[in-house]
Amino acid sequence: MEEKRSNKQKERLEQQIRFILEADKVKNIFRQTYLADGNRKENDAEHSWHLALSAVLLKEHMDEDVDLTKVMIMVLIHDLVEIDAGDTYAYDAEGAATKREREVKAADRIFGLLPDDHGTYFRMLWDEFEEYETADAKFAHLLDNFQPLLLNDASDGRSWTEHGVHRSQVCRRNERIPETSGIVWDKMLEIMDKHIEKGHLKAD
Amino acid sequence: MEEKRSNKQKERLEQQIRFILEADKVKNIFRQTYLADGNRKENDAEHSWHLALSAVLLKEHMDEDVDLTKVMIMVLIHDLVEIDAGDTYAYDAEGAATKREREVKAADRIFGLLPDDHGTYFRMLWDEFEEYETADAKFAHLLDNFQPLLLNDASDGRSWTEHGVHRSQVCRRNERIPETSGIVWDKMLEIMDKHIEKGHLKAD
Repeated sequence: MEEKRSNKQKERLEQQIRFILEADKVKNIFRQTYLADGNRKENDAEHSWHLALSAVLLKEHMDEDVDLTKVMIMVLIHDLVEIDAGDTYAYDAEGAATKREREVKAADRIFGLLPDDHGTYFRMLWDEFEEYETADAKFAHLLDNFQPLLLNDASDGRSWTEHGVHRSQVCRRNERIPETSGIVWDKMLEIMDKHIEKGHLKAD
Repeated sequence: MEEKRSNKQKERLEQQIRFILEADKVKNIFRQTYLADGNRKENDAEHSWHLALSAVLLKEHMDEDVDLTKVMIMVLIHDLVEIDAGDTYAYDAEGAATKREREVKAADRIFGLLPDDHGTYFRMLWDEFEEYETADAKFAHLLDNFQPLLLNDASDGRSWTEHGVHRSQVCRRNERIPETSGIVWDKMLEIMDKHIEKGHLKAD
């Protein structure tokens, strides 16, 4: 009995290790956002680390109660599907059309590497993030959108300039931020206005 | 009164943003460990992301009860001091002599950017990690040591070979893992034995 339990635990550890090593690949998925110093683009692992850290600090500004632990795990895993599906730039209309299908297939494969309970839990969190309905999912999306805005601000709007981004595109992408956090939305508007003035964002 | 509260909240958000942008620099602090694919070394942000994710999965193998949220935050921030102090390789005796002093100074500056309550909380977690006494600190150290071992295993022991690392050095660094998790320690021994056989680790 003791040995049986122990073998099961060993098998769980092996599955977890396979997943941990598979997840390592997200360090090679690069986004369109530049680091604050503007020297290179950031990858999904760095981005996800930054969101989880920011979650601890920005939780207090959310207009609804949120579950910090759940949101941290949600943002830590939210981009793993890009290991198979690649990064689709926020303002890439063509990529967006096939994004969902590519990402669901990736979620099946990647979360499927885990022991059932862990795989089901991560998949549930990823689904909740994608559905963008609960207070926790809204907080996770706020983090996912606010962090690149801060990096764009720090790197002199470099990624906006390169892609000729319009203010209306940023507003559409962030249309649910005002209901998530009034104070963060005010800060986002302030940053956008500054970069319209500087000519990095198009005023529409 | 309303306005006073609101100004205070705005000032907190500004301090948090300054810290978030300062923390961005840890994406440029590179470690000696290679990614699983062996193509390049990993940086502190990627490493910290990987530890927080692994914490969720490996918690079940710890021999004592641990506080997952606290450990996740602990590993997310544990390397921020390296923004000022740089990365000291695990087996660099010369660097180790001045490491503590450099890191304490860095902690004062970096956590000092935050609102007092957040700064004090992060500093307390960093101190707890450094003191390596509580079950939570032991779990965080296990993550910090097991993840590079897994990457070394996946990348054919590249960083061990480059630095001529001895088995006894790895064992000394990991001397408190057996009391933290028996099953993880068994796995570590299995990985070490494999790489002694392959000639990537020196048998002493």
